[in-house]
Amino acid sequence: MNSNRLEAFSDGVLAIIITIMVLELKVPHGTDLKELEPVLPVFLSYILSFIYVGIYWNNHHHMMHAVQKVNGGILWANLHLLFWLSLIPFVTGWLGENHFAELPMALYGVVLLMAAIAYFILQNRILAVQGKDSLLAKALGKDLKGKASPIIYIVAIIASFYSPWIAGALYILVALMWLIPDKRIEIIFKEKK
Amino acid sequence: MNSNRLEAFSDGVLAIIITIMVLELKVPHGTDLKELEPVLPVFLSYILSFIYVGIYWNNHHHMMHAVQKVNGGILWANLHLLFWLSLIPFVTGWLGENHFAELPMALYGVVLLMAAIAYFILQNRILAVQGKDSLLAKALGKDLKGKASPIIYIVAIIASFYSPWIAGALYILVALMWLIPDKRIEIIFKEKK
Amino acid sequence: MNSNRLEAFSDGVLAIIITIMVLELKVPHGTDLKELEPVLPVFLSYILSFIYVGIYWNNHHHMMHAVQKVNGGILWANLHLLFWLSLIPFVTGWLGENHFAELPMALYGVVLLMAAIAYFILQNRILAVQGKDSLLAKALGKDLKGKASPIIYIVAIIASFYSPWIAGALYILVALMWLIPDKRIEIIFKEKK
Amino acid sequence: MNSNRLEAFSDGVLAIIITIMVLELKVPHGTDLKELEPVLPVFLSYILSFIYVGIYWNNHHHMMHAVQKVNGGILWANLHLLFWLSLIPFVTGWLGENHFAELPMALYGVVLLMAAIAYFILQNRILAVQGKDSLLAKALGKDLKGKASPIIYIVAIIASFYSPWIAGALYILVALMWLIPDKRIEIIFKEKK
Repeated sequence: MNSNRLEAFSDGVLAIIITIMVLELKVPHGTDLKELEPVLPVFLSYILSFIYVGIYWNNHHHMMHAVQKVNGGILWANLHLLFWLSLIPFVTGWLGENHFAELPMALYGVVLLMAAIAYFILQNRILAVQGKDSLLAKALGKDLKGKASPIIYIVAIIASFYSPWIAGALYILVALMWLIPDKRIEIIFKEKK
Repeated sequence: MNSNRLEAFSDGVLAIIITIMVLELKVPHGTDLKELEPVLPVFLSYILSFIYVGIYWNNHHHMMHAVQKVNGGILWANLHLLFWLSLIPFVTGWLGENHFAELPMALYGVVLLMAAIAYFILQNRILAVQGKDSLLAKALGKDLKGKASPIIYIVAIIASFYSPWIAGALYILVALMWLIPDKRIEIIFKEKK
Repeated sequence: MNSNRLEAFSDGVLAIIITIMVLELKVPHGTDLKELEPVLPVFLSYILSFIYVGIYWNNHHHMMHAVQKVNGGILWANLHLLFWLSLIPFVTGWLGENHFAELPMALYGVVLLMAAIAYFILQNRILAVQGKDSLLAKALGKDLKGKASPIIYIVAIIASFYSPWIAGALYILVALMWLIPDKRIEIIFKEKK
Repeated sequence: MNSNRLEAFSDGVLAIIITIMVLELKVPHGTDLKELEPVLPVFLSYILSFIYVGIYWNNHHHMMHAVQKVNGGILWANLHLLFWLSLIPFVTGWLGENHFAELPMALYGVVLLMAAIAYFILQNRILAVQGKDSLLAKALGKDLKGKASPIIYIVAIIASFYSPWIAGALYILVALMWLIPDKRIEIIFKEKK
């Protein structure tokens, strides 16, 4: 199997994940501005999750760009990543519906943490095939962002039980950190051409 | 990343947006003709939104046709556009369920306005790469439709609070204005070949 | 725009239509065999609609196979077809939930009829570009099935109010008629190669 | 029609099936850990079904890799397979919501059994075109896993009524059996190149 197939399937799953989250925005029955109030926290958590899925889509393709052939290990590591990402609509809905309460805030972090670990496993599977001198290995370098994110998630999960707002701020921080596109990979692949 | 990837992902998201809107058409429990009455306004707003998403899909691809390479700025401008379009099922459902009341009518306009602005930003990001003498720049020309639409949306949002019907008429007007395919781009790209 | 883009988008929409129909199969709360009883008619109508969408997907691609370039008219004729097909989950759900009552049975036929008309319009738009001597025109020949289907739908819609079962039988008849793949097109295109 | 079209459509349907299952994870209203209790069995059955759909996607593409041209028989055999797979979200939801009760456990097996039969039919349709000396035929060999699975499903369906836990263990067993990627096909196709 070549990587196009895998990318197309992942694209499909990510497109569905990012779009069905909007179904958690329940249409209110009245027409008052007040009716939109319970929708607001769901909307805010929707924005955050939309950005996270966007980041994963973005990084996933930058990484897959470096892959030609896919073996069974990469394939299942990829499905494992999609599994955790598929839980984002669920935790987003729970978070929004409960106005950012402690437990939903922590669970949101758990899913982000598991997705980050799954991404890390996938990355290692690919590096195992490509070798330490590959373009991807060079592009990743020390992979500071990839290593910092899980640590911040763990801090945020613990912080959730003391102050959900700190946890929320940490999730936003990680998102901002990744929003800046991964110039390293772009630059190295440009040099290649 | 080349533009095919971006188009495929956008296609996926737009296909899902256009299709999940139909889930707002709740299956009535009885079998009387009367049972379909509450479905009618939802159906009408579904038609309007279907056309709007169709227009965006159409124009999006005409524009992307002119793009070869995608940078981080274009990528996030595109996700920003998809974000606002993803809210269309929500405002469509709210509009239909409340028989075109003032506030839902205004919010529908706000989402259309934000999508139009997002489209404008995306267009500018692409033009920034392509330059003022590019085919796309020529094809757009003065971009009268692109500039008129947001103004009409703003008028419609304000009008919603006085007469939702005028707002509705304005949304239909903009849709009709765009339904006429963008001959300019088609013509110029034909000349190219 | 070339036809690949249009096919990919239509594929996406059809894949979603065929799959979200299953959401109308509401998970029963108990575990008795009796609990599955209300699901049965929904399941039967799901099978019929699944086959119809499958037929449309099949014929759509056989037809699109003959198209290279897509103009604005073809594009909107295609979206018009997708619009009517997108209503199939709604009428399927209504039909199944009301145990094949008169009005849902008739409305099911109306949607099938409108989809058939939309398909006819799309076909004519394509033929207008390709000309009367094109492979597609030859492959269609007198297009007996294409002409018979809308007539049978109309009969079925009227019959719904006297005997929903006759209407149901007619819908099954049309489905069977089309299930036999369009050998004509396959044969003619094979000759071409 | 060539096989790319069929693969793209199947990819779309499988991506949607695997993702809409998550909608069965209903967002709880409270924020207690206790609120997650009823979600747990749904989550466990979601994991199992996610793996099953992943296996089908994996094997489907390994098989389709060997196909160049698709005829009407293959096309409908493929839709038949997708039909049974599309029921997985329904039986998964029923299974999870009833804490692995007898009847849902049996019905889960029935859907897996029908999908396995549908896969077998599709495989035979493809082999009929490719011939007994084809790479695919060699790759499949005696197809022990393909023949053992339906038998295990039948045993599990019967066992459901005595002990749902045995049935569950058998479903997990089959999943594990297939999780090991089909090395045979990979190896033979590698030799080809």
